[in-house]
Amino acid sequence: MPQTVSTGELTGLLVRVFLRHGVSAENAGPVAETVVAAERDGAVSHGLLRLPGYVLTLKSGWVDGRAVPVVTDAAPGLVATEAANGFAQPALRAGAPLLREKARRQGIAPVAIRNSHHFAAVWPDIEPFAVEGFIALAMVNGRQRMVVWGGKRKLLGTSPMAFACPRPGRLPLVWDQASSVMAQGEVLLAAQHGKMLPEGVGLDADGRPTTDPRAVLDGGSILPFGGHKGSSIAFMIEILAGALTGGPFGFEDRSHEYPGAQTPKAGQTVILIDPLHVPGNRYFERIESLFGAIKASGVERLPADRRYAVRKQSLRNGIPLSDRDWETLQKLLA
Amino acid sequence: MPQTVSTGELTGLLVRVFLRHGVSAENAGPVAETVVAAERDGAVSHGLLRLPGYVLTLKSGWVDGRAVPVVTDAAPGLVATEAANGFAQPALRAGAPLLREKARRQGIAPVAIRNSHHFAAVWPDIEPFAVEGFIALAMVNGRQRMVVWGGKRKLLGTSPMAFACPRPGRLPLVWDQASSVMAQGEVLLAAQHGKMLPEGVGLDADGRPTTDPRAVLDGGSILPFGGHKGSSIAFMIEILAGALTGGPFGFEDRSHEYPGAQTPKAGQTVILIDPLHVPGNRYFERIESLFGAIKASGVERLPADRRYAVRKQSLRNGIPLSDRDWETLQKLLA
Repeated sequence: MPQTVSTGELTGLLVRVFLRHGVSAENAGPVAETVVAAERDGAVSHGLLRLPGYVLTLKSGWVDGRAVPVVTDAAPGLVATEAANGFAQPALRAGAPLLREKARRQGIAPVAIRNSHHFAAVWPDIEPFAVEGFIALAMVNGRQRMVVWGGKRKLLGTSPMAFACPRPGRLPLVWDQASSVMAQGEVLLAAQHGKMLPEGVGLDADGRPTTDPRAVLDGGSILPFGGHKGSSIAFMIEILAGALTGGPFGFEDRSHEYPGAQTPKAGQTVILIDPLHVPGNRYFERIESLFGAIKASGVERLPADRRYAVRKQSLRNGIPLSDRDWETLQKLLA
Repeated sequence: MPQTVSTGELTGLLVRVFLRHGVSAENAGPVAETVVAAERDGAVSHGLLRLPGYVLTLKSGWVDGRAVPVVTDAAPGLVATEAANGFAQPALRAGAPLLREKARRQGIAPVAIRNSHHFAAVWPDIEPFAVEGFIALAMVNGRQRMVVWGGKRKLLGTSPMAFACPRPGRLPLVWDQASSVMAQGEVLLAAQHGKMLPEGVGLDADGRPTTDPRAVLDGGSILPFGGHKGSSIAFMIEILAGALTGGPFGFEDRSHEYPGAQTPKAGQTVILIDPLHVPGNRYFERIESLFGAIKASGVERLPADRRYAVRKQSLRNGIPLSDRDWETLQKLLA
């Protein structure tokens, strides 16, 4: 059995998995590509590791793999997309041509996506826009796992945010980060291995600080990064991805009514800015002087550099799959 | 001598101070109002405490108090303002009518301001827009004080960001925070009082961690909040407030050539979003359920609550001025 696959081969396999489990042909491609992008770039926490979660969620009926997103030209500078309880990636894809056109013409445009399930990394959503020359910002809300600073109970999702900016003749700068001090997956891993968490990561069900990962998972909550400042960032994300879009807030999550469901049903806002509209900013000339200064200040690696390095290897040599990944794929295809 | 003044009286006094030190009548109002807003709300670090800094900077020739901002209708959804080496507040004021009109019509609009001096809190810039029903986001870059995560030398400003969202029948939620783990002013205060800093606040001139505030001030740097995540936020701010606007980057600062100069010459981007354009989001109905849930989760105070409470007192009883503040005012008016 082959242990190394090309990105094309892996995409083909994943499309078959999604088709096999109730995802439409239109939706299978965009979802599969996001999983492959993560695996290709060594971002394994959002790669094949998530595949069983996708399938379990589809089986639970919590997400509609056949949803048809509805794109609305809501205002001259605004796209609104109803994901109709489907995955987020096909919804973003459906509105992208209109979003791009508006951003080019208006200088800036957001798409507000609601009732979407985002179970992937966020950077694959925006990197392509930055390659096309846009500055891009994306925020996703999600089901409650994190406490608002000063609170006792979980209320917001881990609130990921991603940012990308174009660079002349190079791959974009891209970062993507949760607003929680630790990912839910890492807390889960600590619990499975019987390890304690560092101080400052979580609260128990009574809102008291704890280093016991089981107490965090059992009705407790994860803290925001950087104290009240990270909490404020998460707050903004909840408002732009939840309130603006009309998608569910983190605390309105009902996934527990669908045993096996793992994806958040929430909202997402992606904002594109065309830097060429500001007269005299010489964006593409000046941006490299910033990157040069960052390097000269002693910074050896930019966000995304590691992903780009692994990607280069994967595109050249293929993506290595573990026996376990391969077995999972075969099982989900059976 | 009066120890308590109304906001109107204080504004009048400050306008006279600014006129006395080379600020035009058009510019004196907006700058004075920002200082008064901070003092009125108990945000004293950005209130009268900064007045001598404004005057010293004006005397140094680093900022042009008589600058006439030039507003350009850069794209259907974008305003670009050349602050012409003047203060940021008159530049924002000059573009505000066009910005507001565009955001109402397009759904979203930013103003990109460059070559502006922002020496005030950022929340007074956006709170009024949120009162009018806009979601507002502001980012300001500034002269280098902070290291990029992983670097050894200062490169970015403390990179403040502010966010505001409207609430039906209530004052907006507003937050405003530096992306550094500690304000430059607090480091200065520690140095003056001979106190050491907590761990994780600063690096010395060689890029080594230090708790000595003098080492931080003497060629060292302040760290971003929340490690690499806060650094990523600051990175975004530098790109949106510096690269997009065409204003100087933090590391291009030349204020040291103007003895006494304290303000950063940099850029600022303010983005307005009209939440009413997204069909069916029921923003003004749903937003209060979020605030209700936050309160129910145990959060007793939202960002801005303390400012609003002090403001209420100030509007009712006047703003108490210390002998020292009063003497400073008299001296600057002499």
